[in-house]
Amino acid sequence: MADGTSTPEPIQRLIEAFHRLPGVGPKSAQRLAYHILRAPEQEARALSDALLDVKRRIRLCSVCMNITEQDPCTYCADERRDHTTICVVEQALDLLAIERSGYRGLYHVLHGVLNPMDGVGPEDIRVRELIVRLQDGVAQEVIMATNPSLEGEATAMLIQRLIGPAGVKVTRLARGLPSGADLEYTDDVTLARALEGRRELV
Amino acid sequence: MADGTSTPEPIQRLIEAFHRLPGVGPKSAQRLAYHILRAPEQEARALSDALLDVKRRIRLCSVCMNITEQDPCTYCADERRDHTTICVVEQALDLLAIERSGYRGLYHVLHGVLNPMDGVGPEDIRVRELIVRLQDGVAQEVIMATNPSLEGEATAMLIQRLIGPAGVKVTRLARGLPSGADLEYTDDVTLARALEGRRELV
Repeated sequence: MADGTSTPEPIQRLIEAFHRLPGVGPKSAQRLAYHILRAPEQEARALSDALLDVKRRIRLCSVCMNITEQDPCTYCADERRDHTTICVVEQALDLLAIERSGYRGLYHVLHGVLNPMDGVGPEDIRVRELIVRLQDGVAQEVIMATNPSLEGEATAMLIQRLIGPAGVKVTRLARGLPSGADLEYTDDVTLARALEGRRELV
Repeated sequence: MADGTSTPEPIQRLIEAFHRLPGVGPKSAQRLAYHILRAPEQEARALSDALLDVKRRIRLCSVCMNITEQDPCTYCADERRDHTTICVVEQALDLLAIERSGYRGLYHVLHGVLNPMDGVGPEDIRVRELIVRLQDGVAQEVIMATNPSLEGEATAMLIQRLIGPAGVKVTRLARGLPSGADLEYTDDVTLARALEGRRELV
Protein backbone atom coordinates (compact mmCIF):
# COMPACT_ATOMS: atom_id res chain seq x y z
CA MET A 1 0.00 0.00 0.00
CA ALA A 2 1.16 3.52 -0.80
CA ASP A 3 0.58 4.58 2.78
CA GLY A 4 2.75 1.82 4.16
CA THR A 5 5.56 4.12 5.18
CA SER A 6 3.42 6.60 7.07
CA THR A 7 1.20 4.13 8.93
CA PRO A 8 2.80 3.63 12.37
CA GLU A 9 4.51 0.25 12.62
CA PRO A 10 2.36 -1.15 15.49
CA ILE A 11 -0.80 -0.49 13.44
CA GLN A 12 0.78 -1.99 10.32
CA ARG A 13 1.66 -5.07 12.33
CA LEU A 14 -1.87 -5.40 13.72
CA ILE A 15 -3.33 -5.06 10.21
CA GLU A 16 -1.05 -7.87 9.03
CA ALA A 17 -2.00 -10.08 11.97
CA PHE A 18 -5.73 -9.60 11.25
CA HIS A 19 -5.11 -10.17 7.53
CA ARG A 20 -3.67 -13.61 8.32
CA LEU A 21 -7.07 -14.75 9.66
CA PRO A 22 -9.26 -16.69 7.21
CA GLY A 23 -11.79 -14.54 5.33
CA VAL A 24 -10.24 -11.24 6.42
CA GLY A 25 -9.07 -9.20 3.40
CA PRO A 26 -6.67 -6.23 3.51
CA LYS A 27 -9.50 -3.67 3.76
CA SER A 28 -11.27 -5.56 6.56
CA ALA A 29 -7.97 -6.00 8.39
CA GLN A 30 -7.42 -2.22 8.23
CA ARG A 31 -10.94 -1.54 9.53
CA LEU A 32 -10.46 -4.00 12.40
CA ALA A 33 -7.10 -2.46 13.37
CA TYR A 34 -8.55 1.06 13.40
CA HIS A 35 -11.51 -0.20 15.37
CA ILE A 36 -9.10 -1.51 18.01
CA LEU A 37 -7.43 1.92 18.11
CA ARG A 38 -10.74 3.56 18.94
CA ALA A 39 -12.02 0.79 21.22
CA PRO A 40 -11.55 0.78 25.00
CA GLU A 41 -8.26 -0.76 26.14
CA GLN A 42 -10.13 -3.55 27.91
CA GLU A 43 -11.66 -4.75 24.62
CA ALA A 44 -8.20 -5.13 23.06
CA ARG A 45 -6.94 -6.80 26.21
CA ALA A 46 -9.89 -9.23 26.33
CA LEU A 47 -9.18 -10.42 22.78
CA SER A 48 -5.43 -10.54 23.41
CA ASP A 49 -5.82 -12.60 26.59
CA ALA A 50 -8.41 -14.91 25.02
CA LEU A 51 -6.02 -15.69 22.16
CA LEU A 52 -3.20 -16.71 24.50
CA ASP A 53 -5.56 -18.53 26.86
CA VAL A 54 -6.92 -20.73 24.11
CA LYS A 55 -3.42 -21.81 23.10
CA ARG A 56 -2.40 -22.26 26.73
CA ARG A 57 -5.40 -24.09 28.16
CA ILE A 58 -6.86 -26.06 25.26
CA ARG A 59 -5.48 -29.50 24.40
CA LEU A 60 -6.78 -32.63 22.66
CA CYS A 61 -8.79 -35.16 24.66
CA SER A 62 -6.62 -38.28 24.91
CA VAL A 63 -9.65 -40.47 24.16
CA CYS A 64 -11.59 -38.78 21.32
CA MET A 65 -9.10 -36.12 20.13
CA ASN A 66 -11.71 -33.40 20.58
CA ILE A 67 -10.42 -30.04 21.79
CA THR A 68 -10.90 -29.68 25.52
CA GLU A 69 -9.76 -28.01 28.70
CA GLN A 70 -9.96 -31.14 30.88
CA ASP A 71 -8.76 -34.57 29.83
CA PRO A 72 -10.84 -36.65 29.18
CA CYS A 73 -13.27 -34.14 27.67
CA THR A 74 -16.82 -33.55 28.94
CA TYR A 75 -18.26 -35.83 26.22
CA CYS A 76 -16.01 -38.79 27.05
CA ALA A 77 -16.43 -38.28 30.81
CA ASP A 78 -20.24 -38.10 30.64
CA GLU A 79 -21.63 -41.43 31.92
CA ARG A 80 -25.15 -40.61 30.68
CA ARG A 81 -23.97 -40.74 27.08
CA ASP A 82 -24.16 -43.85 24.95
CA HIS A 83 -20.61 -45.20 25.12
CA THR A 84 -21.31 -47.95 22.59
CA THR A 85 -21.57 -45.52 19.66
CA ILE A 86 -18.73 -43.39 18.29
CA CYS A 87 -19.40 -40.70 15.70
CA VAL A 88 -16.28 -39.90 13.63
CA VAL A 89 -16.02 -36.31 12.37
CA GLU A 90 -13.41 -34.38 10.40
CA GLN A 91 -13.07 -31.43 12.75
CA ALA A 92 -14.24 -30.11 16.11
CA LEU A 93 -16.77 -27.73 14.53
CA ASP A 94 -18.50 -30.71 12.89
CA LEU A 95 -18.89 -32.27 16.33
CA LEU A 96 -20.84 -29.21 17.47
CA ALA A 97 -23.13 -29.54 14.44
CA ILE A 98 -23.82 -33.23 15.16
CA GLU A 99 -24.42 -32.41 18.83
CA ARG A 100 -27.00 -29.79 17.89
CA SER A 101 -28.92 -32.42 15.89
CA GLY A 102 -29.64 -34.33 19.11
CA TYR A 103 -27.01 -37.10 18.96
CA ARG A 104 -25.86 -38.23 22.42
CA GLY A 105 -23.18 -40.87 21.79
CA LEU A 106 -19.43 -40.37 21.82
CA TYR A 107 -17.19 -38.80 19.18
CA HIS A 108 -13.86 -39.15 17.47
CA VAL A 109 -12.29 -36.13 15.80
CA LEU A 110 -9.93 -36.92 12.89
CA HIS A 111 -8.57 -33.38 12.45
CA GLY A 112 -8.55 -33.74 8.69
CA VAL A 113 -9.48 -36.05 5.83
CA LEU A 114 -7.45 -38.10 3.38
CA ASN A 115 -6.32 -35.91 0.53
CA PRO A 116 -3.68 -37.51 -1.70
CA MET A 117 -3.48 -34.32 -3.82
CA ASP A 118 -2.32 -32.36 -0.77
CA GLY A 119 -0.24 -35.27 0.50
CA VAL A 120 -2.50 -35.99 3.49
CA GLY A 121 -2.34 -39.74 4.22
CA PRO A 122 -3.84 -41.92 7.00
CA GLU A 123 -0.87 -41.19 9.27
CA ASP A 124 -1.62 -37.43 9.11
CA ILE A 125 -5.09 -37.73 10.66
CA ARG A 126 -6.17 -39.31 13.94
CA VAL A 127 -7.07 -42.77 12.59
CA ARG A 128 -4.62 -44.78 14.67
CA GLU A 129 -6.07 -43.35 17.89
CA LEU A 130 -9.51 -44.56 16.80
CA ILE A 131 -8.26 -48.10 16.17
CA VAL A 132 -6.49 -48.22 19.55
CA ARG A 133 -9.63 -46.95 21.21
CA LEU A 134 -11.81 -49.70 19.73
CA GLN A 135 -9.68 -52.44 21.30
CA ASP A 136 -11.51 -52.28 24.65
CA GLY A 137 -14.60 -53.71 22.92
CA VAL A 138 -17.04 -51.19 24.39
CA ALA A 139 -17.98 -49.54 21.11
CA GLN A 140 -20.53 -51.49 19.03
CA GLU A 141 -20.98 -48.98 16.21
CA VAL A 142 -18.83 -46.37 14.50
CA ILE A 143 -20.79 -43.75 12.58
CA MET A 144 -18.73 -42.16 9.80
CA ALA A 145 -19.80 -38.51 9.74
CA THR A 146 -17.14 -37.14 7.42
CA ASN A 147 -18.36 -34.62 4.83
CA PRO A 148 -20.16 -35.98 1.73
CA SER A 149 -17.21 -34.93 -0.43
CA LEU A 150 -14.69 -36.99 -2.39
CA GLU A 151 -12.16 -36.81 0.43
CA GLY A 152 -14.78 -37.43 3.12
CA GLU A 153 -16.04 -40.56 1.31
CA ALA A 154 -12.51 -41.86 0.77
CA THR A 155 -11.74 -41.37 4.45
CA ALA A 156 -14.93 -43.21 5.45
CA MET A 157 -14.02 -46.12 3.16
CA LEU A 158 -10.48 -46.34 4.50
CA ILE A 159 -11.60 -46.36 8.12
CA GLN A 160 -14.28 -48.96 7.36
CA ARG A 161 -11.55 -51.20 5.82
CA LEU A 162 -9.23 -50.67 8.76
CA ILE A 163 -11.68 -51.29 11.60
CA GLY A 164 -14.02 -53.74 9.86
CA PRO A 165 -11.94 -56.77 11.00
CA ALA A 166 -12.45 -55.70 14.64
CA GLY A 167 -16.12 -56.76 14.32
CA VAL A 168 -17.49 -53.30 14.96
CA LYS A 169 -20.44 -52.14 12.86
CA VAL A 170 -19.45 -49.20 10.66
CA THR A 171 -22.23 -46.94 9.41
CA ARG A 172 -22.31 -43.82 7.28
CA LEU A 173 -24.55 -40.76 7.54
CA ALA A 174 -27.42 -41.12 5.06
CA ARG A 175 -26.83 -39.21 1.86
CA GLY A 176 -29.72 -36.95 2.61
CA LEU A 177 -26.98 -34.35 2.70
CA PRO A 178 -26.72 -32.53 -0.63
CA SER A 179 -23.43 -33.36 -2.34
CA GLY A 180 -20.75 -30.72 -1.92
CA ALA A 181 -22.41 -29.26 1.17
CA ASP A 182 -20.45 -28.22 4.22
CA LEU A 183 -21.47 -30.22 7.28
CA GLU A 184 -20.73 -27.34 9.59
CA TYR A 185 -23.47 -25.22 8.00
CA THR A 186 -26.12 -27.90 7.57
CA ASP A 187 -29.37 -27.29 9.46
CA ASP A 188 -30.22 -29.42 12.49
CA VAL A 189 -33.23 -31.20 10.97
CA THR A 190 -31.31 -32.35 7.87
CA LEU A 191 -28.53 -33.59 10.12
CA ALA A 192 -30.98 -35.45 12.36
CA ARG A 193 -32.51 -37.14 9.23
CA ALA A 194 -29.06 -38.09 8.02
CA LEU A 195 -28.28 -39.65 11.39
CA GLU A 196 -31.53 -41.66 11.37
CA GLY A 197 -30.96 -42.99 7.84
CA ARG A 198 -27.40 -44.10 8.41
CA ARG A 199 -26.54 -47.45 6.75
CA GLU A 200 -23.92 -50.10 7.32
CA LEU A 201 -20.90 -50.00 5.05
CA VAL A 202 -20.57 -53.35 3.21
CA MET B 1 -26.25 -21.66 21.42
CA ALA B 2 -27.21 -25.18 22.40
CA ASP B 3 -23.56 -26.20 22.59
CA GLY B 4 -22.69 -23.36 24.94
CA THR B 5 -22.24 -25.64 27.93
CA SER B 6 -19.93 -28.14 26.25
CA THR B 7 -17.66 -25.67 24.42
CA PRO B 8 -14.62 -25.15 26.68
CA GLU B 9 -14.72 -21.77 28.38
CA PRO B 10 -11.50 -20.35 26.83
CA ILE B 11 -12.88 -21.03 23.32
CA GLN B 12 -16.24 -19.54 24.26
CA ARG B 13 -14.47 -16.45 25.50
CA LEU B 14 -12.39 -16.13 22.31
CA ILE B 15 -15.54 -16.49 20.17
CA GLU B 16 -17.16 -13.69 22.17
CA ALA B 17 -14.08 -11.46 21.82
CA PHE B 18 -14.05 -11.96 18.02
CA HIS B 19 -17.82 -11.41 17.88
CA ARG B 20 -17.33 -7.96 19.44
CA LEU B 21 -15.33 -6.83 16.38
CA PRO B 22 -17.29 -4.88 13.73
CA GLY B 23 -18.62 -7.05 10.89
CA VAL B 24 -17.88 -10.35 12.64
CA GLY B 25 -21.08 -12.38 13.21
CA PRO B 26 -21.42 -15.35 15.59
CA LYS B 27 -20.61 -17.92 12.85
CA SER B 28 -17.52 -16.03 11.68
CA ALA B 29 -16.39 -15.58 15.27
CA GLN B 30 -16.64 -19.34 15.78
CA ARG B 31 -14.66 -20.03 12.60
CA LEU B 32 -11.96 -17.57 13.64
CA ALA B 33 -11.67 -19.09 17.12
CA TYR B 34 -11.35 -22.62 15.72
CA HIS B 35 -8.81 -21.35 13.20
CA ILE B 36 -6.71 -20.03 16.09
CA LEU B 37 -6.95 -23.44 17.77
CA ARG B 38 -5.46 -25.10 14.68
CA ALA B 39 -2.98 -22.32 13.89
CA PRO B 40 0.63 -22.32 15.13
CA GLU B 41 1.07 -20.77 18.56
CA GLN B 42 3.17 -17.95 17.08
CA GLU B 43 0.26 -16.77 14.93
CA ALA B 44 -1.98 -16.40 17.99
CA ARG B 45 0.86 -14.71 19.85
CA ALA B 46 1.56 -12.28 16.98
CA LEU B 47 -2.05 -11.10 16.97
CA SER B 48 -2.18 -10.98 20.76
CA ASP B 49 1.00 -8.89 20.99
CA ALA B 50 -0.02 -6.59 18.15
CA LEU B 51 -3.30 -5.82 19.91
CA LEU B 52 -1.58 -4.78 23.13
CA ASP B 53 1.20 -2.95 21.30
CA VAL B 54 -1.21 -0.76 19.41
CA LYS B 55 -2.89 0.34 22.62
CA ARG B 56 0.45 0.81 24.37
CA ARG B 57 2.46 2.63 21.70
CA ILE B 58 -0.07 4.60 19.67
CA ARG B 59 -1.15 8.05 20.82
CA LEU B 60 -2.63 11.17 19.19
CA CYS B 61 -0.28 13.70 17.57
CA SER B 62 -0.48 16.85 19.71
CA VAL B 63 -0.63 19.00 16.55
CA CYS B 64 -3.02 17.29 14.11
CA MET B 65 -4.65 14.63 16.37
CA ASN B 66 -3.70 11.89 13.92
CA ILE B 67 -2.76 8.54 15.46
CA THR B 68 0.99 8.22 15.74
CA GLU B 69 3.90 6.58 17.49
CA GLN B 70 6.07 9.72 17.69
CA ASP B 71 4.78 13.17 18.63
CA PRO B 72 4.55 15.21 16.42
CA CYS B 73 3.55 12.66 13.77
CA THR B 74 5.49 12.06 10.55
CA TYR B 75 3.11 14.31 8.57
CA CYS B 76 3.45 17.30 10.91
CA ALA B 77 7.23 16.82 11.25
CA ASP B 78 7.81 16.60 7.48
CA GLU B 79 9.29 19.94 6.32
CA ARG B 80 8.78 19.05 2.65
CA ARG B 81 5.02 19.15 3.09
CA ASP B 82 2.94 22.26 2.43
CA HIS B 83 2.42 23.66 5.95
CA THR B 84 0.04 26.38 4.71
CA THR B 85 -2.76 23.92 3.93
CA ILE B 86 -4.65 21.80 6.46
CA CYS B 87 -7.02 19.08 5.35
CA VAL B 88 -9.67 18.31 7.99
CA VAL B 89 -10.93 14.71 8.06
CA GLU B 90 -13.35 12.78 10.24
CA GLN B 91 -11.09 9.85 11.08
CA ALA B 92 -7.58 8.54 10.61
CA LEU B 93 -8.61 6.13 7.84
CA ASP B 94 -9.90 9.09 5.77
CA LEU B 95 -6.46 10.69 6.07
CA LEU B 96 -4.94 7.62 4.40
CA ALA B 97 -7.47 7.89 1.57
CA ILE B 98 -6.64 11.58 0.98
CA GLU B 99 -2.93 10.81 1.11
CA ARG B 100 -3.34 8.15 -1.57
CA SER B 101 -4.93 10.74 -3.88
CA GLY B 102 -1.64 12.67 -3.98
CA TYR B 103 -2.32 15.46 -1.44
CA ARG B 104 0.84 16.62 0.35
CA GLY B 105 -0.30 19.29 2.81
CA LEU B 106 -1.02 18.83 6.51
CA TYR B 107 -4.03 17.24 8.20
CA HIS B 108 -6.35 17.61 11.13
CA VAL B 109 -8.29 14.58 12.40
CA LEU B 110 -11.60 15.37 14.12
CA HIS B 111 -12.27 11.83 15.41
CA GLY B 112 -15.98 12.15 14.69
CA VAL B 113 -18.63 14.43 13.21
CA LEU B 114 -21.41 16.48 14.70
CA ASN B 115 -24.42 14.28 15.30
CA PRO B 116 -27.12 15.88 17.42
CA MET B 117 -29.23 12.68 17.26
CA ASP B 118 -26.45 10.76 19.01
CA GLY B 119 -25.62 13.69 21.26
CA VAL B 120 -22.26 14.44 19.60
CA GLY B 121 -21.59 18.18 19.87
CA PRO B 122 -18.60 20.36 18.89
CA GLU B 123 -16.92 19.69 22.26
CA ASP B 124 -16.92 15.93 21.54
CA ILE B 125 -14.75 16.19 18.43
CA ARG B 126 -11.31 17.81 17.99
CA VAL B 127 -12.49 21.24 16.80
CA ARG B 128 -10.95 23.29 19.59
CA GLU B 129 -7.50 21.88 18.81
CA LEU B 130 -7.90 23.05 15.20
CA ILE B 131 -8.78 26.60 16.26
CA VAL B 132 -5.82 26.78 18.66
CA ARG B 133 -3.56 25.46 15.92
CA LEU B 134 -4.61 28.20 13.45
CA GLN B 135 -3.49 30.97 15.82
CA ASP B 136 0.16 30.84 14.68
CA GLY B 137 -0.96 32.21 11.29
CA VAL B 138 0.95 29.67 9.22
CA ALA B 139 -2.08 27.98 7.68
CA GLN B 140 -3.63 29.88 4.77
CA GLU B 141 -6.27 27.35 3.80
CA VAL B 142 -8.35 24.76 5.59
CA ILE B 143 -9.83 22.08 3.32
CA MET B 144 -12.95 20.50 4.82
CA ALA B 145 -12.79 16.84 3.81
CA THR B 146 -15.56 15.47 5.98
CA ASN B 147 -17.86 12.91 4.32
CA PRO B 148 -20.57 14.22 1.93
CA SER B 149 -23.24 13.17 4.44
CA LEU B 150 -25.66 15.24 6.50
CA GLU B 151 -23.38 15.11 9.53
CA GLY B 152 -20.25 15.76 7.47
CA GLU B 153 -21.79 18.84 5.84
CA ALA B 154 -23.03 20.17 9.18
CA THR B 155 -19.56 19.71 10.66
CA ALA B 156 -17.97 21.54 7.72
CA MET B 157 -20.41 24.44 8.11
CA LEU B 158 -19.77 24.71 11.85
CA ILE B 159 -16.01 24.73 11.46
CA GLN B 160 -16.25 27.29 8.67
CA ARG B 161 -18.30 29.56 10.98
CA LEU B 162 -15.87 29.07 13.87
CA ILE B 163 -12.62 29.70 12.00
CA GLY B 164 -13.90 32.13 9.34
CA PRO B 165 -13.20 35.17 11.56
CA ALA B 166 -9.52 34.13 11.77
CA GLY B 167 -9.14 35.15 8.12
CA VAL B 168 -8.23 31.68 6.93
CA LYS B 169 -9.67 30.49 3.63
CA VAL B 170 -12.01 27.53 4.22
CA THR B 171 -12.69 25.24 1.26
CA ARG B 172 -14.75 22.10 0.79
CA LEU B 173 -14.04 19.00 -1.29
CA ALA B 174 -15.93 19.30 -4.60
CA ARG B 175 -19.17 17.37 -4.57
CA GLY B 176 -17.90 15.07 -7.26
CA LEU B 177 -18.32 12.50 -4.54
CA PRO B 178 -21.62 10.65 -4.91
CA SER B 179 -23.94 11.49 -2.02
CA GLY B 180 -24.01 8.89 0.73
CA ALA B 181 -20.64 7.46 -0.28
CA ASP B 182 -18.02 6.46 2.23
CA LEU B 183 -14.83 8.49 1.82
CA GLU B 184 -12.69 5.63 3.00
CA TYR B 185 -13.76 3.45 0.05
CA THR B 186 -13.69 6.11 -2.68
CA ASP B 187 -11.19 5.45 -5.48
CA ASP B 188 -8.07 7.60 -5.75
CA VAL B 189 -9.00 9.33 -9.03
CA THR B 190 -12.40 10.48 -7.74
CA LEU B 191 -10.73 11.76 -4.60
CA ALA B 192 -8.08 13.61 -6.62
CA ARG B 193 -10.87 15.25 -8.71
CA ALA B 194 -12.73 16.25 -5.58
CA LEU B 195 -9.57 17.84 -4.21
CA GLU B 196 -8.99 19.81 -7.42
CA GLY B 197 -12.57 21.13 -7.54
CA ARG B 198 -12.66 22.31 -3.92
CA ARG B 199 -14.49 25.64 -3.45
CA GLU B 200 -14.49 28.34 -0.80
CA LEU B 201 -17.33 28.24 1.72
CA VAL B 202 -19.24 31.54 1.62
